[in-house]
Amino acid sequence: MKRWMKYLTALLLMGLCAVTQAAAEEATLAEVVSRFELAFDMLWLVLAAVLVFFMQAGFAMVESGLSRAKNAGNIMMKNLMDFSAGAVAFWAIGWGLMYGASISGFIGSDQLFIHGAESTLYRDWMFQVVFAATAATIVSGAMAERTKFGGYLIYSVCITAIIYPISGHWIWNGGWLAELGFHDFAGSTVVHSVGAWAALVGAFFLGARKGKYVQIGKKTVVRAIPGHNMPLAALGVFILWFGWYGFNAGSTLSGTDPDIAHVAVTTTLAAATGAIGAMFSSWKWFGKPDPSMSLNGALSGLVGITAGTWVVSPVGALIIGVVSGVLVVASVELVDKVLHIDDPVGAVSVHGVCGAWGTLAVGLFADGVNDASIVGLFYGGGATQLGIQLLGVAAVFAWVVLLSSILFGSLKAIGMLRVNGKEELMGLDIGEHGMESYSGFQIFSNM
Amino acid sequence: MKRWMKYLTALLLMGLCAVTQAAAEEATLAEVVSRFELAFDMLWLVLAAVLVFFMQAGFAMVESGLSRAKNAGNIMMKNLMDFSAGAVAFWAIGWGLMYGASISGFIGSDQLFIHGAESTLYRDWMFQVVFAATAATIVSGAMAERTKFGGYLIYSVCITAIIYPISGHWIWNGGWLAELGFHDFAGSTVVHSVGAWAALVGAFFLGARKGKYVQIGKKTVVRAIPGHNMPLAALGVFILWFGWYGFNAGSTLSGTDPDIAHVAVTTTLAAATGAIGAMFSSWKWFGKPDPSMSLNGALSGLVGITAGTWVVSPVGALIIGVVSGVLVVASVELVDKVLHIDDPVGAVSVHGVCGAWGTLAVGLFADGVNDASIVGLFYGGGATQLGIQLLGVAAVFAWVVLLSSILFGSLKAIGMLRVNGKEELMGLDIGEHGMESYSGFQIFSNM
Amino acid sequence: MKRWMKYLTALLLMGLCAVTQAAAEEATLAEVVSRFELAFDMLWLVLAAVLVFFMQAGFAMVESGLSRAKNAGNIMMKNLMDFSAGAVAFWAIGWGLMYGASISGFIGSDQLFIHGAESTLYRDWMFQVVFAATAATIVSGAMAERTKFGGYLIYSVCITAIIYPISGHWIWNGGWLAELGFHDFAGSTVVHSVGAWAALVGAFFLGARKGKYVQIGKKTVVRAIPGHNMPLAALGVFILWFGWYGFNAGSTLSGTDPDIAHVAVTTTLAAATGAIGAMFSSWKWFGKPDPSMSLNGALSGLVGITAGTWVVSPVGALIIGVVSGVLVVASVELVDKVLHIDDPVGAVSVHGVCGAWGTLAVGLFADGVNDASIVGLFYGGGATQLGIQLLGVAAVFAWVVLLSSILFGSLKAIGMLRVNGKEELMGLDIGEHGMESYSGFQIFSNM
Repeated sequence: MKRWMKYLTALLLMGLCAVTQAAAEEATLAEVVSRFELAFDMLWLVLAAVLVFFMQAGFAMVESGLSRAKNAGNIMMKNLMDFSAGAVAFWAIGWGLMYGASISGFIGSDQLFIHGAESTLYRDWMFQVVFAATAATIVSGAMAERTKFGGYLIYSVCITAIIYPISGHWIWNGGWLAELGFHDFAGSTVVHSVGAWAALVGAFFLGARKGKYVQIGKKTVVRAIPGHNMPLAALGVFILWFGWYGFNAGSTLSGTDPDIAHVAVTTTLAAATGAIGAMFSSWKWFGKPDPSMSLNGALSGLVGITAGTWVVSPVGALIIGVVSGVLVVASVELVDKVLHIDDPVGAVSVHGVCGAWGTLAVGLFADGVNDASIVGLFYGGGATQLGIQLLGVAAVFAWVVLLSSILFGSLKAIGMLRVNGKEELMGLDIGEHGMESYSGFQIFSNM
Repeated sequence: MKRWMKYLTALLLMGLCAVTQAAAEEATLAEVVSRFELAFDMLWLVLAAVLVFFMQAGFAMVESGLSRAKNAGNIMMKNLMDFSAGAVAFWAIGWGLMYGASISGFIGSDQLFIHGAESTLYRDWMFQVVFAATAATIVSGAMAERTKFGGYLIYSVCITAIIYPISGHWIWNGGWLAELGFHDFAGSTVVHSVGAWAALVGAFFLGARKGKYVQIGKKTVVRAIPGHNMPLAALGVFILWFGWYGFNAGSTLSGTDPDIAHVAVTTTLAAATGAIGAMFSSWKWFGKPDPSMSLNGALSGLVGITAGTWVVSPVGALIIGVVSGVLVVASVELVDKVLHIDDPVGAVSVHGVCGAWGTLAVGLFADGVNDASIVGLFYGGGATQLGIQLLGVAAVFAWVVLLSSILFGSLKAIGMLRVNGKEELMGLDIGEHGMESYSGFQIFSNM
Repeated sequence: MKRWMKYLTALLLMGLCAVTQAAAEEATLAEVVSRFELAFDMLWLVLAAVLVFFMQAGFAMVESGLSRAKNAGNIMMKNLMDFSAGAVAFWAIGWGLMYGASISGFIGSDQLFIHGAESTLYRDWMFQVVFAATAATIVSGAMAERTKFGGYLIYSVCITAIIYPISGHWIWNGGWLAELGFHDFAGSTVVHSVGAWAALVGAFFLGARKGKYVQIGKKTVVRAIPGHNMPLAALGVFILWFGWYGFNAGSTLSGTDPDIAHVAVTTTLAAATGAIGAMFSSWKWFGKPDPSMSLNGALSGLVGITAGTWVVSPVGALIIGVVSGVLVVASVELVDKVLHIDDPVGAVSVHGVCGAWGTLAVGLFADGVNDASIVGLFYGGGATQLGIQLLGVAAVFAWVVLLSSILFGSLKAIGMLRVNGKEELMGLDIGEHGMESYSGFQIFSNM
């Protein structure tokens, strides 16, 4: 019996060993899964952030291409500096106000200077800072060709440090709008409309460029001021479209999310139909297919799909895009010909009007497939979601217009908003920066 | 004894428990592997698709840079719209004809409107649509500076909806050419030659630009019409090269494939030697190293390696590239000086001739290492593979020439192919779109 | 008893079975982990390499934008060919000298033609070749507008085949500097300074462009020669910044490294503060915020952070960046106004001076968090690391200056270094390549 006992004990210990091993195993697998999920998220979010960063180049090219040669260097400086100043401001203050611990769903309150950062926090900051800078850079287009550089710097810091993070907090950090069920997947409102409404206020306070609206008797003659470099503008749009895959698909926030493809597909289709919609609109209304309208059409489709990219079907995306394309042409005309607000690149229409449209479209076209709690009017969800979307659009509009009015009003009051008339005529490259952007080229002096 | 029994039973149950646990474990591991493999494929294919999308910007820059300033906006519009219209067409019809259930290996027959899509289908469509649009955009270069915009739109839809998907089906969806063993890894023939042969037919039906071939007595004087913006053309080539890593390495179709690096290396070396080959060819034949030939040389190397990138060694890639570089210079001269077909950017030579060369080169240089069933003539595989490659090249040529002739012939017959002479002289920017691309710049009026 | 024995034996065998299964399981999990780690590294390194490749476009745009229109095509050719020739040279020789088996920590000695390559070697070569080409391309900026094309080709091959790989071996392949503890994470010294010191020697041997330094009596009047295309230069900087995320974050060399985000964040902040530092410096010293200085400031911040990106905190990165920005403005002035070395784009200051600064800054700001063995002076690590960093900077400077002097001295001696005066006045586009970059545009003839 003793021999048996020894034999058995040995075997049973082996059994126990197996139990332990299997348990350890299980632990290991869970660890592996967790480590790899982190790696997927890291690669995806950093690469997406890098794509979104590149959108800065896109904005710089679109804005300079659609304005005059004599201001091209100034536009480059503004685009370079709104990212640079914006990144520091979002590091010091903006991130904390947006993603810090919430005070009543209205504002974040810690993590200034991304204090105590771990790798996942660094990753999230990296992904978010490029969105903040996108909101900032939208403004420079609408305010092009007449804004003082120093005033623009102050503005850039304010939007990335304060204006953008606070409304962003309401929606993307579980704030009061998120609580209500407001849905803005990648930022039609959070990013694009914020930039555009600030741009609207800025352009309003600035006034139009010299010679844009000429009073002849009682009639205001609207003069077109053509951009100086269409290939540059087109390159900018292609770069933006390229970067937008990071913007929208990256907003899955997960590198293992199978819906990355869904987002990429709806983004593609809306951009395509936005360009098509704007092309045919300009063809019908102005007699010829207009390149700058068509380019803006692609952007408008992208802005339009950004809110709903994850919750609408490809067909929904198609419709959202084509409506955006028509809307942007109509809105550019309205802002220019009727409201007489001088927006050289159409930023208010592209990012503001189509951003609002895209946000509302969630309440129309959300099909409930990817998120059963978000169903739009056309898919049997009633008007509730639409109402919430409308509320969010209105709240962000009010917030941004209020803050921007204070900001641009103050800058105007202290004379830091607009360059003087002589400088404007010479161009801001000479006036603000003492240089020419196209040295050696012969350029008509009245341009 | 009874105490022993109880003791033993307890331990044995623990042992059983371990068995069960291990089995559950195994299931879990398989699930984890499957989920992560999907995640790898998703990230890789979407990112590769995004890189390939960006090639649209590259084509736009190369084509406008190598043609005249007065047509730059028109070229931008065509590049923007062939992707936009192409994406919708490929969504509605093209994908189904290419990847739907096969009718006798000749044509796909379902999945129109990518019906019933799951995330993997969305992913695959995203990766494929950018290839379809690449084929479409190749055409615009050869037809630059004289094609009506409306006709071009019709053409774009036809190639992405019908021409490209059907021959693509033969090769990439297990069709009759695939059955025979035809190998075209990333599309030297499937994509590039399809675009180029359509471009050839288009340029033929269009006729040359005014002033390109001047008849003096019995002699035809060939005039060079230089491009207006070399930095833009160079930027375009760098963008194309950049995007080509998505094009070729993405065609592994798997994010866990260790051969991604092999493909990247052969792609790099062929592009480099393509540029070198064209540079020395132009140096030897024309007396000076020619920038636009060298830029086209890099592209020709890329087109040339695209078919065999996975099955040839680095040394094979080097040779394929250098031959492409020499070939492209010779072919551009032949098409222009002998055939008198006016191809402003050399698209037929780069994408057609070097696409065919690259496809045939599989039959010469495939070394059997990555795929033992594909061995070329120079690696002891005999002439079988070469013959099959030749058959594929010929079949696709015949298919595209036939369809394109019907298409462009019809467009010509109804007067939708070529702009009138006055418009051509003014430039298509003014004629087709009512704008100037370089407003403010002084440009010689005879250009 | 016998029944018990059978019963027990059966159960015990099941237990054994579990043991075996669990062990098999463990093996499988280890295999899965290893396979997926390889997949992460593959995707990360190939994508990072692709981003770094794109920096070639950035360099081409910055260099041409900051020099004159008449040399733009020549600059494109140089940038295209230094990558092309460099890739072949690095494939044939460079990789082996850098990463082959070490002879006494001084030079690699095998793996020529990346012989016997497996997928991980292909991957590593792909990631490294783009770094080698970066070192090569830095030179073309400082030598712009007066260097013979043929001589430049020879130089490109020499730096990628010999100069860069050998000093790289000392630091990145466990050579003598690595043994001493020298730390250069992504190549402030290994890549940027190597290119810049060669550029310095090249510019010195070449002499200044005609009309740059005009002797009037005993006084040397320094004339500014403005660049011809500021949007192009700005686009180049955005492209470089974009690609730099591959450069720095890719240098983790691991796709599962959680510090990828840390690197991205410090890179972002240093680039931002570099731009800000240079902007305010130029504002203070020259009266207006200078666009080309600010653009160079962003690059200087990127060069400066490259060595320490992994071992410094965000605050450290901020300080490194701002110092780089101030330094680059001061250095450009010094090189131009005092040393009278004509560096059209400021490459020596951006990549050399700020590369050295960034390398030394490791010895000041390394905080010991990510690597406890690297602690700088300001974080209580004493002056040891700083001393080692200084030694590395000096050693690489000496090596590159020695080799470059032999190289450029020889090229000068055989008349292959500088174009003749007439050609320089006409522009190298006509002289070296027989073409114009901006055909059709009216350009002032004295530019």
